[in-house]
Amino acid sequence: MDNEAKTINRVKVTINGEDYYIKGQASEEYIKQVAKYVDRKMYELERKYPNLSQAKLAVLAALNITDDLFKLRQEYEEFLNTFGNSTEG
Amino acid sequence: MDNEAKTINRVKVTINGEDYYIKGQASEEYIKQVAKYVDRKMYELERKYPNLSQAKLAVLAALNITDDLFKLRQEYEEFLNTFGNSTEG
Repeated sequence: MDNEAKTINRVKVTINGEDYYIKGQASEEYIKQVAKYVDRKMYELERKYPNLSQAKLAVLAALNITDDLFKLRQEYEEFLNTFGNSTEG
Repeated sequence: MDNEAKTINRVKVTINGEDYYIKGQASEEYIKQVAKYVDRKMYELERKYPNLSQAKLAVLAALNITDDLFKLRQEYEEFLNTFGNSTEG
């Protein structure tokens, strides 16, 4: 889209007690927000299911977040169907 | 919201070769779609980073999906700011 030099940020985040180094073009702040969201989901799930392995907790977190994504997508599509049509033409 | 008896579905799904039993009020089809999304993310990440543990792969998948969620949320909010305001009152 633009010709700005694409800076790759490398950000250290901690998720459920483990450090991860995330690389990406997104800002450090954004990457930290994303990590915090995952960390919180895993924390909540670990409290609910204290005997699960880290791998299973992370998969459950991923399922949980996908559910959030699908629900938002559906809400957005319904909104587009309602308002998108009425503003056409 | 309504007084329908809430059926709890228990659905077996396979994510990155592991079986999970997911319980929820959502339909079996929906739960399978959610699981498929996570399974695909983990598959793509495993091809890209074949040496990562299952736990790290699942955390990366969760980060990736959160990024999808945040981007969609931002798009939706921008849409609401544009069209929501113009349809007010």
